[in-house]
Amino acid sequence: MSNPRVEGEKPCRLNRRFDGNGAWNAELAGNLTQAICETYEDEAGISHIDGGNMPERDAVISVLETFLEVLFPGYSGLRPVSRAAIGFVIGDMVNRIYRDLTEQVRRAYGYRCTLECCEGCDCVRMAHEAVLGLLQRLPDIRRVLKTDVQAALDGDPATNSSDEIIIAYPGLKAIAIQRVAHELYVAKVPLIPRVMGEFAHTVTGIDIHPGATIGGSFFIDHGTGVVIGETAVIGDSVKIYQGVTLGALSFPKDACGRLIKGAKRHPNIEDNVTIYAGATILGDITVGHDSVVGGNVWLTESVAPHSRVTIADPDLTITQRRHR
Amino acid sequence: MSNPRVEGEKPCRLNRRFDGNGAWNAELAGNLTQAICETYEDEAGISHIDGGNMPERDAVISVLETFLEVLFPGYSGLRPVSRAAIGFVIGDMVNRIYRDLTEQVRRAYGYRCTLECCEGCDCVRMAHEAVLGLLQRLPDIRRVLKTDVQAALDGDPATNSSDEIIIAYPGLKAIAIQRVAHELYVAKVPLIPRVMGEFAHTVTGIDIHPGATIGGSFFIDHGTGVVIGETAVIGDSVKIYQGVTLGALSFPKDACGRLIKGAKRHPNIEDNVTIYAGATILGDITVGHDSVVGGNVWLTESVAPHSRVTIADPDLTITQRRHR
Amino acid sequence: MSNPRVEGEKPCRLNRRFDGNGAWNAELAGNLTQAICETYEDEAGISHIDGGNMPERDAVISVLETFLEVLFPGYSGLRPVSRAAIGFVIGDMVNRIYRDLTEQVRRAYGYRCTLECCEGCDCVRMAHEAVLGLLQRLPDIRRVLKTDVQAALDGDPATNSSDEIIIAYPGLKAIAIQRVAHELYVAKVPLIPRVMGEFAHTVTGIDIHPGATIGGSFFIDHGTGVVIGETAVIGDSVKIYQGVTLGALSFPKDACGRLIKGAKRHPNIEDNVTIYAGATILGDITVGHDSVVGGNVWLTESVAPHSRVTIADPDLTITQRRHR
Repeated sequence: MSNPRVEGEKPCRLNRRFDGNGAWNAELAGNLTQAICETYEDEAGISHIDGGNMPERDAVISVLETFLEVLFPGYSGLRPVSRAAIGFVIGDMVNRIYRDLTEQVRRAYGYRCTLECCEGCDCVRMAHEAVLGLLQRLPDIRRVLKTDVQAALDGDPATNSSDEIIIAYPGLKAIAIQRVAHELYVAKVPLIPRVMGEFAHTVTGIDIHPGATIGGSFFIDHGTGVVIGETAVIGDSVKIYQGVTLGALSFPKDACGRLIKGAKRHPNIEDNVTIYAGATILGDITVGHDSVVGGNVWLTESVAPHSRVTIADPDLTITQRRHR
Repeated sequence: MSNPRVEGEKPCRLNRRFDGNGAWNAELAGNLTQAICETYEDEAGISHIDGGNMPERDAVISVLETFLEVLFPGYSGLRPVSRAAIGFVIGDMVNRIYRDLTEQVRRAYGYRCTLECCEGCDCVRMAHEAVLGLLQRLPDIRRVLKTDVQAALDGDPATNSSDEIIIAYPGLKAIAIQRVAHELYVAKVPLIPRVMGEFAHTVTGIDIHPGATIGGSFFIDHGTGVVIGETAVIGDSVKIYQGVTLGALSFPKDACGRLIKGAKRHPNIEDNVTIYAGATILGDITVGHDSVVGGNVWLTESVAPHSRVTIADPDLTITQRRHR
Repeated sequence: MSNPRVEGEKPCRLNRRFDGNGAWNAELAGNLTQAICETYEDEAGISHIDGGNMPERDAVISVLETFLEVLFPGYSGLRPVSRAAIGFVIGDMVNRIYRDLTEQVRRAYGYRCTLECCEGCDCVRMAHEAVLGLLQRLPDIRRVLKTDVQAALDGDPATNSSDEIIIAYPGLKAIAIQRVAHELYVAKVPLIPRVMGEFAHTVTGIDIHPGATIGGSFFIDHGTGVVIGETAVIGDSVKIYQGVTLGALSFPKDACGRLIKGAKRHPNIEDNVTIYAGATILGDITVGHDSVVGGNVWLTESVAPHSRVTIADPDLTITQRRHR
């Protein structure tokens, strides 16, 4: 079926002398395919061929969305949740999480087996235990998320509704996902925690590594550009604004000059600290409790509790522009 | 159906001694479900049970996409739009918007009724009026969006095509969605304007509160990290680059130390102001018309019209690194 | 079918006096539609009516996802890829890319024909050639992407797995998409390269114009807020952190005061340069090879090779807050 002829396309259509279908044929496609496949031979570093199934990103994200339904029941708007039916609704979700996530975690462990030529590990059992452990943590995760919602309510004058926070705030979504992913990180599940973290990064602009340890009553406002590194440790009642980095200052290297992976290299933020927009805090330093770090501050040394860290008032130059 | 056996998984498969299906059973699932459901009892703050249906996020976003089709007809590429058929195409979309958005707005008002124990409000009528009001505003919204597209065309040397701006520019998408969400914000529809705003935030990295009042010929370039607060007021022909914050400096509190919600706390940007990347403007201050605010400026006081505000040239240190 | 009655909605339901269905009727819908359609008459700038089909965004993105499968085979987790079957799997994808992308590119060229009243161009042939050219470049693109993965592995202490980088790192996704889009940009395909670039921007927060020229072993860490302009030229082994801008300082204008489109206006970054978070480099300047640009630096002049550019240590004020 051809497209209906429309006015604007005339010049092209009248001048068409080329048979697109004829120009593309099996030989051409075969040659292109062969040229591409040849690059799979000698560049194993970015191909995954003849290995087991990798975890499936979309399946992991789908499980994550079910987690969010369990953590904040009734907020998706998909159906009203009554107290009478809640056990069935949640029971169904718990079963689905177990079934789907266990398969993905098994794949992730199986992937690591392939790499490390393990001899005796039992990926099915390990996947069962990791997912079960996470499901058992859900009541505790809910308790701490409740403190996060309250922190947002106390900290943001733009809302007076915990429901609005749960439905719309990117900071809450990012921390909820991180708290789930962190459990799998602790259980040393490969790949999947990072897939979860990057999903949160994509939808919120907030990049929290699943390895970070984060206390209760945590509030990130706006959030775009926030980066929190793998070995950061954050206490209770910490408040962070958009564009804040808790990063590494330098990377420890071994005798051969290679990076040492996983070494402690990110900040410790103690209880009741507020960090304003654009501040950058780098290295394995400590910001003492009850401190305030001002906007755009660049901090690479520890500060005592109850500190207020600011940069000198920026030296503004204000001149009059020529009137037009 | 079992997966095909593949080379890489052998170690695990040979060593599997664990029956995953047997380990997960109804009793275990039931206990986990009960533990989770118990947290719904005493932590009502983050559960929505036995309430009416909340607005459904996906339905709101789907309506928003129809709005964008109506505002920029023919750009989705889904089908050519001819002048002969345009009335039918748009009429169909208008009917769908009315039907689907009215249901979501009714839910949102119904949700507020539950909270506030209202006695006499008629959520169906209120939803009808809010959506009708928005639909009546669409011709005006289109007129102002036309000025936004022209401003992008005038302001960005990377394009000479208004079509490219409509199809691909995140800044235009963000402001188009904000102009729609703002109408519902003004009509005091709960939750939905914020859901729309956060959808725009997710896809563009630009966080404009639906409450902000924004004039015509508005252009945001690149846009990631831009934050514009609820009570910001922006004049005509304002141009903003990535990472700019129009935020609050401090939050007014009541006698009990609680935040006063909704108070005016964000800047006023008058006509013909340009704000370069990374500038932060905080508080209920005024940037006079025809002013330019330089990159990375941190501004917390009003400036007169025709001002040029810059930070002192950063004191760069340039040294030579040891050659390797 | 009515919703089940739930406790919370009672107040509204009891007080409902308004017939929503009655209030919305064909006449009202018709009037609204007419008012909207009238704005299409005289505001052609933001309508696309009676033109050919525009490229379809979703189709372009779907093709892009197939490209990513071909570039990184076996990583989606959708099915295991065996060496025996790889030719068929990739051959199928190559055929799909050709078929679907050629149609979208034909539309894009056809769109330009309409604008420019071309007389003799053959959009079908041009689309065939552009897509064929891109497919022929895939082996080379894979070779350079391999160096990008290695650069991430060498540069980030948070991972020791090239698989994790391929599955989860936003920086790699952004550069992989840019390398594909860049080929179509060079072939002067309208609209589509930018649609691809903005898709990457949406999912990664990294905004690289398809026009930028980027060498091998390129690594962007975290990435949110990165902006790389159309005429930027980047050498080999360059490393960039979140929030870095390679932008334009001022825009050349013609005698009539209009922007000159496409002029060289972005930086040249030579080999082995590292640019830390939040640095802004503006204008058609050159950062010499083996240089390091520190965090938050604002640079508008060229620097020699082996330079280290830093801002003066920020003048921090650290005071003690009153204890509560």
